[in-house]
Amino acid sequence: MIKVGIVGGTGYTGVELLRLLAAHPEVEIQAITSRSEKGLPVAEMYPNLRGHLDLAFSEPDMKVLTNCDVVFFATPNGIAMTMAKELVDAGVKVIDLAADFRIKDIQEWSKWYGMEHACPDLVEQAVYGLPEVNRAEIKNARLIANPGCYPTAVQLGLLPLIENGLVETDHLVADAKSGVSGAGRGASVAALQAESSESFKAYGVAGHRHLPEIKQGLAIANKAEVGLTFVPHLVPMIRGIEATCYSRLKDASITAEQLQALYEKHYADEVFVDVMPAGSLPETRSVKGANLCRIAIHVPQGGDTVVILSVIDNLVKGAAGQAVQNMNIMFGLKENAGLTAIALVP
Amino acid sequence: MIKVGIVGGTGYTGVELLRLLAAHPEVEIQAITSRSEKGLPVAEMYPNLRGHLDLAFSEPDMKVLTNCDVVFFATPNGIAMTMAKELVDAGVKVIDLAADFRIKDIQEWSKWYGMEHACPDLVEQAVYGLPEVNRAEIKNARLIANPGCYPTAVQLGLLPLIENGLVETDHLVADAKSGVSGAGRGASVAALQAESSESFKAYGVAGHRHLPEIKQGLAIANKAEVGLTFVPHLVPMIRGIEATCYSRLKDASITAEQLQALYEKHYADEVFVDVMPAGSLPETRSVKGANLCRIAIHVPQGGDTVVILSVIDNLVKGAAGQAVQNMNIMFGLKENAGLTAIALVP
Amino acid sequence: MIKVGIVGGTGYTGVELLRLLAAHPEVEIQAITSRSEKGLPVAEMYPNLRGHLDLAFSEPDMKVLTNCDVVFFATPNGIAMTMAKELVDAGVKVIDLAADFRIKDIQEWSKWYGMEHACPDLVEQAVYGLPEVNRAEIKNARLIANPGCYPTAVQLGLLPLIENGLVETDHLVADAKSGVSGAGRGASVAALQAESSESFKAYGVAGHRHLPEIKQGLAIANKAEVGLTFVPHLVPMIRGIEATCYSRLKDASITAEQLQALYEKHYADEVFVDVMPAGSLPETRSVKGANLCRIAIHVPQGGDTVVILSVIDNLVKGAAGQAVQNMNIMFGLKENAGLTAIALVP
Amino acid sequence: MIKVGIVGGTGYTGVELLRLLAAHPEVEIQAITSRSEKGLPVAEMYPNLRGHLDLAFSEPDMKVLTNCDVVFFATPNGIAMTMAKELVDAGVKVIDLAADFRIKDIQEWSKWYGMEHACPDLVEQAVYGLPEVNRAEIKNARLIANPGCYPTAVQLGLLPLIENGLVETDHLVADAKSGVSGAGRGASVAALQAESSESFKAYGVAGHRHLPEIKQGLAIANKAEVGLTFVPHLVPMIRGIEATCYSRLKDASITAEQLQALYEKHYADEVFVDVMPAGSLPETRSVKGANLCRIAIHVPQGGDTVVILSVIDNLVKGAAGQAVQNMNIMFGLKENAGLTAIALVP
Repeated sequence: MIKVGIVGGTGYTGVELLRLLAAHPEVEIQAITSRSEKGLPVAEMYPNLRGHLDLAFSEPDMKVLTNCDVVFFATPNGIAMTMAKELVDAGVKVIDLAADFRIKDIQEWSKWYGMEHACPDLVEQAVYGLPEVNRAEIKNARLIANPGCYPTAVQLGLLPLIENGLVETDHLVADAKSGVSGAGRGASVAALQAESSESFKAYGVAGHRHLPEIKQGLAIANKAEVGLTFVPHLVPMIRGIEATCYSRLKDASITAEQLQALYEKHYADEVFVDVMPAGSLPETRSVKGANLCRIAIHVPQGGDTVVILSVIDNLVKGAAGQAVQNMNIMFGLKENAGLTAIALVP
Repeated sequence: MIKVGIVGGTGYTGVELLRLLAAHPEVEIQAITSRSEKGLPVAEMYPNLRGHLDLAFSEPDMKVLTNCDVVFFATPNGIAMTMAKELVDAGVKVIDLAADFRIKDIQEWSKWYGMEHACPDLVEQAVYGLPEVNRAEIKNARLIANPGCYPTAVQLGLLPLIENGLVETDHLVADAKSGVSGAGRGASVAALQAESSESFKAYGVAGHRHLPEIKQGLAIANKAEVGLTFVPHLVPMIRGIEATCYSRLKDASITAEQLQALYEKHYADEVFVDVMPAGSLPETRSVKGANLCRIAIHVPQGGDTVVILSVIDNLVKGAAGQAVQNMNIMFGLKENAGLTAIALVP
Repeated sequence: MIKVGIVGGTGYTGVELLRLLAAHPEVEIQAITSRSEKGLPVAEMYPNLRGHLDLAFSEPDMKVLTNCDVVFFATPNGIAMTMAKELVDAGVKVIDLAADFRIKDIQEWSKWYGMEHACPDLVEQAVYGLPEVNRAEIKNARLIANPGCYPTAVQLGLLPLIENGLVETDHLVADAKSGVSGAGRGASVAALQAESSESFKAYGVAGHRHLPEIKQGLAIANKAEVGLTFVPHLVPMIRGIEATCYSRLKDASITAEQLQALYEKHYADEVFVDVMPAGSLPETRSVKGANLCRIAIHVPQGGDTVVILSVIDNLVKGAAGQAVQNMNIMFGLKENAGLTAIALVP
Repeated sequence: MIKVGIVGGTGYTGVELLRLLAAHPEVEIQAITSRSEKGLPVAEMYPNLRGHLDLAFSEPDMKVLTNCDVVFFATPNGIAMTMAKELVDAGVKVIDLAADFRIKDIQEWSKWYGMEHACPDLVEQAVYGLPEVNRAEIKNARLIANPGCYPTAVQLGLLPLIENGLVETDHLVADAKSGVSGAGRGASVAALQAESSESFKAYGVAGHRHLPEIKQGLAIANKAEVGLTFVPHLVPMIRGIEATCYSRLKDASITAEQLQALYEKHYADEVFVDVMPAGSLPETRSVKGANLCRIAIHVPQGGDTVVILSVIDNLVKGAAGQAVQNMNIMFGLKENAGLTAIALVP
């Protein structure tokens, strides 16, 4: 059994991690920490866990954590970078679900996250935990930067086009939409049901923190910078991200069928990426609660604009599920261990 | 492996059954029938099943069905009663998720369901599949009448009071509320999101088909008829039933603490009934996707009115999950086999 | 034109008051105060008001307020009682949408609201602003205690039965359900869309502040104390309250038809109470945005239990609309001035 | 008073038209027709209209309709084209809320709508009823083709850029999102709350009927064909459309400030277009129930991609409200007569 610690488990990625790990056949949860909720049984905050997890929040204790095989950080940005080094040095594997180790360019990171980075050395070592791109590195990693939710949906959608040099990369558009759980569990007026339900809006148009992360990933595949306009929107539902990505074919004679074949081949061995049949219109609910990205490829009216539709559950493939997937890879387990649940429909 | 057939799998109880059975460790789905959708891969209708179930709807075929160990009917009312006999006679166990075998009084059944009963003999043999009441009979049953959703929530809530003779049974009130999946997957104007969301209403006040079913169950416990006012309501959410049940204590000196102790004892060995701590306010989401009934007991202002709060997922403990639970009991499996999923929160 | 001041306009009753008053033909809004939002144009907080209201929040200023004809308090409980006296003494009419003046028994009020009452004298003078009961007193009132949302729905539903002595009043049940806007616009985890949508639950079972208010109103009609079990529930929608009220007929020979006739007569002259045709099942959306209470009367299975269904928009007939209705009465306007909008369906 | 007839009033645009017209100070509704619902009081189908509209659905009767001053068609596509000629010839003004007269190219129309056009002559005469573009022609029109919902949002958003020749028009992108009322009131599985709520998806990617309509409007402004990729999405809410439009500036030195000024000037005299302050993120709820388009202009990261955000209520400015606006113009009324309601927030 893998001994697991979770730092900061009161938010939505935390409870989702608990839901997945409590049912994971190879895992033993040792500790779940929260300074503010110290002593509170987890199942009192999250009654869905009653009967499944008999653990209370505890104060972060390095003795306990260094005794784990792996520690997940489900903390706000800026916490993991202050604690990861000690753990890594103690031989504990670390998976950070926040953004501390995602951006390789420290200055860029500081600009978007508004703080100095406490541990630039580890950034270099950290492996960006998108298994469909970095599986080999993940296997041997000591520290994983678990990708953001939007970056997962957009990169899995666009990478095959870019890696194969099929589209112009100076004016990519990713029009992305997320359910409200993406805003987290913090009390805020904007995320009240009376405010956010029955409405739809764009946000972060001037610049969203996931923009540099997506651009970094696409640039690696492109072997050059890319130009990307990224507009996130808030959808009045709890879970789910849909990204509609627009790009222009370099060669207008390429057909939808060819692209379909390309995607199917690209992801043929990926258990958590489902290239839907030609013409499909993936719904976010088809992945609700499941660790899965479903993708459809369209070339409307046979023109030269490719439209990629990509859906994930922001809390699963976009956060906690992907983190567990990374853990499975790191520890040599079956990649889908604990991740076989079928999406909840209706 | 238990060979399973499903008749009529296109509705919500059908797809939920598929979700549960596709992940059940001891089950092999042999056939899923639908006259109208014959030939259609199940995963095309329900994309959440893509990759988990490689089966197409087929026409009902007695040769295939009699070769199963158990056949579930997830059909509209009135179908199972025309097919069950042949299956039972062939030694196949039958679990009807519809209402054909729930009411022992054939005339009463006909009145509420508006048709002649095609198979009164089997009604007598059928076991009402509420395991918390009839576990022993279920074990040896050949035919299970799987309870309705409201009846499950209300009976599990009220039975301890009635069995113990604690409340007056001539004027019980069950004010129940259901998510819209309870209305089924049939196209109807009233169930359109534009009609049913952002609104709340009572329905079936003059008389709902679950009324005689609930009264029958309570009367058995009461060893006498009960008087019950049952008012169902439609809640603008997909899954979940909450029942708020009001009854009057015969002895006003009985305290909430005593009732709490009584319920905890009553359900101490039940894995799928959770008596919440005193003062709890169970949310339907705490059982979303899970085979579980959570119950809380209140005696407001220390008066003589007991208020029981009972929540279930109408598609799981209120339908498909309970059916699988019955199957587990009938086949001597662990009662929670395939039913250990944690509710999806948020 | 009536000069209007609003104290505390940042909450949902505040913005609803603004929506109604900005379109009221006889009203001129002089000031809308908020200490915390001082200086902020109202339309920046509530973009629906852009182009309709060119006013900024200002600090409460007695000079401005005493210059108004009427001042509405859309403040948290406990504010109006500290400011009303000065206004009333200055000849300004006051309408308090909070609870400061609703309960005549000061000690009872203190118990439920957890503070000393700052102005017991005014409580005595205050008129409970339920026009269908107290129209004559409202006309001459200097201070109106605008009713709570649940109390409006429950009282309008039950009063005809009680005033006419038709039902037993020692064991009334009001099972009430409210949309999430009833919880107000304060940031709270429990009211996040990710928490409250797709779920249903009872709350306040042990005791809700609207209980003494309802009991007070029913007792006046009953000329004696009443016994009431009141259980509020949270519905995953923004606006609307539905109350399902259960009571037992003293004379079981009374028919639904007789009760229907009684209600129709009782509310024949009321423009804001709609007694629906026999057998109706009122939906909350049928009053969304409208100052209206719709009521239906049922006697299920011809028994002796009367079921009254009553729906309102909690922010309109349950708060701001009723406040404007009271203002109209106080100033001799047509009672429906500014209140003729049709509910928004779908 | 203007005598108004409505053909086909059972759908959502029909009931919205009734809501607006029943409260319109200059209108008298003479008839509302529906073959299927003949004889049914309108308020039984739409209880929000109880007390506001005392009219029953009647069979379409040319004698009654030709006696009207104006007839609205809120019918499915293909009906108005069979009846409009007789009305127009009788001097009755006609406003078609369906698509029969929107596309000038008859062959193109037939291709997208899958039927022969019954009345090509009238197509020529018909005026496309987007007042912000065609106000002068509307004033004297006998027949109005009321714009589609998406076309209203997208055109009002993009036209200032295109008319002024500021952007490249060969690769425009309109990523649009609509609430479920856009799918109409027909019973369908896909629009059930249990199917469409808590999910998000693109649809019509291969080609949506509003595409040729939008392209036609943009081409007129562009004085040349435009290239447009239009992807509509379904949002789990009842009302509202948001369009996020992407285009590339011809001259990268043009700033957001210049564009903001351009839009403010362009729409300075329009009462139903609100150019929001720089940096705004318009929410659909800010126009819920109101005849209004709110627009914001962004140039993310100071690049050369312009992002226009445009929101409307699909049933008001996207359908019934715009139809009433057209009527007001045609009859010389104040353009906002009957259209002054404030959006319902929350």
